[in-house]
Amino acid sequence: MILRLFNTPPRSPVVIDPVIPSEPMTSTSIPSPDQSLHITKRRLLDVGLATLLERGYNATGIQDLLVATSVPKGSFYHHFVSKEDFALHVVDRYLAEVHALLDQALGDTDRAPLERVRSFFERLMALYASQGYLGSLIGLLGQELAAVNTAFRRRMEGAFDGIARRLAEPLEEARRRGDLPAEADPLQAANLMLDCWEGAAARSRLLRSAAPLEAAIEVSFRTVLA
Amino acid sequence: MILRLFNTPPRSPVVIDPVIPSEPMTSTSIPSPDQSLHITKRRLLDVGLATLLERGYNATGIQDLLVATSVPKGSFYHHFVSKEDFALHVVDRYLAEVHALLDQALGDTDRAPLERVRSFFERLMALYASQGYLGSLIGLLGQELAAVNTAFRRRMEGAFDGIARRLAEPLEEARRRGDLPAEADPLQAANLMLDCWEGAAARSRLLRSAAPLEAAIEVSFRTVLA
Repeated sequence: MILRLFNTPPRSPVVIDPVIPSEPMTSTSIPSPDQSLHITKRRLLDVGLATLLERGYNATGIQDLLVATSVPKGSFYHHFVSKEDFALHVVDRYLAEVHALLDQALGDTDRAPLERVRSFFERLMALYASQGYLGSLIGLLGQELAAVNTAFRRRMEGAFDGIARRLAEPLEEARRRGDLPAEADPLQAANLMLDCWEGAAARSRLLRSAAPLEAAIEVSFRTVLA
Repeated sequence: MILRLFNTPPRSPVVIDPVIPSEPMTSTSIPSPDQSLHITKRRLLDVGLATLLERGYNATGIQDLLVATSVPKGSFYHHFVSKEDFALHVVDRYLAEVHALLDQALGDTDRAPLERVRSFFERLMALYASQGYLGSLIGLLGQELAAVNTAFRRRMEGAFDGIARRLAEPLEEARRRGDLPAEADPLQAANLMLDCWEGAAARSRLLRSAAPLEAAIEVSFRTVLA
């Protein structure tokens, strides 16, 4: 059932259709009428996502990013106030991708609510596969910056909370229709699934393999939601 | 049951009895007959653990560490070849602490095997509490360095594998005596528990709270092992 998913090409956050402008949710700059600026910004965000996912925050150098993208320094600082601002824009872009997967999976109301939740994690696994099993950007940056940057820590916790709240909706629907026990706490169950998923994503980053993710999906649906 | 644990003072890896010499498992230097060198090395490892756990690898500066410990640079490089070598010694020290908790918890054969496993996670939670809920050093450094340092990635994966194998022993005992289903796979179950735990540890680092860890213990014992 998991392998079936890989027959559909996973959406990659790195390959973006160049004709569709995309604005990060927290953009503080006014969208420029100059399309080339959009392309530059998108290029920085795309390469930034790949680099942050591979190296983490502290080991990512803006200078390397400028060389890799052939973008001049002034242009970078036209779009982003600082490295932290840049990283937060990359996180927004990544989160938008995750929420698009939530839209696709949870919006498929032809399927039973628990199947929609499972579909979300399978789609997320396909995203990780397309990135070479480097784990979760939110988990990765949250861990690295949690203790030294309170703004980042709250932002990452807010990201997890937002995903858990969306997952709690179909879990609540499942509870109401008797697919989960009446006494189940949908939000708590969603948080537990997400924490198990993040641990599995971290292990998958160590092993460069889908196995921990597959096991997390199986155990969530065989046991956590039993 | 979880709160009860906190009535016993948690062992802290930062407060070490100064009369007991402690050698990291991978020490490449011959133990010095000069006890003061041991003290210096231990001091560097103790402060290094606290610093790495707070900041991660890349944001930890050797210079800051030397200032914090009042240790001269030459003395640091007498004990450690490089920052990476130093971090690996800190990891060894941390892992020795985790394995000591495993010894205590799993060695208590008066308790049923599943209770011994639960006791290990409760002890680990007490350790995290004593550190201010900064999560798991192995998880943290593994994530940060997984993609850029193959030696580190394998070392961290080896650490998880070693812990999972030890947890699989009481799980196998539980399976044999009928506390787990006959078809249960003890090593797979141990890895799943550990992955969920690591995800909960990461979330606990974001929230600075025991709640995700408590939930992970509850769900492991109510469901994963059901």
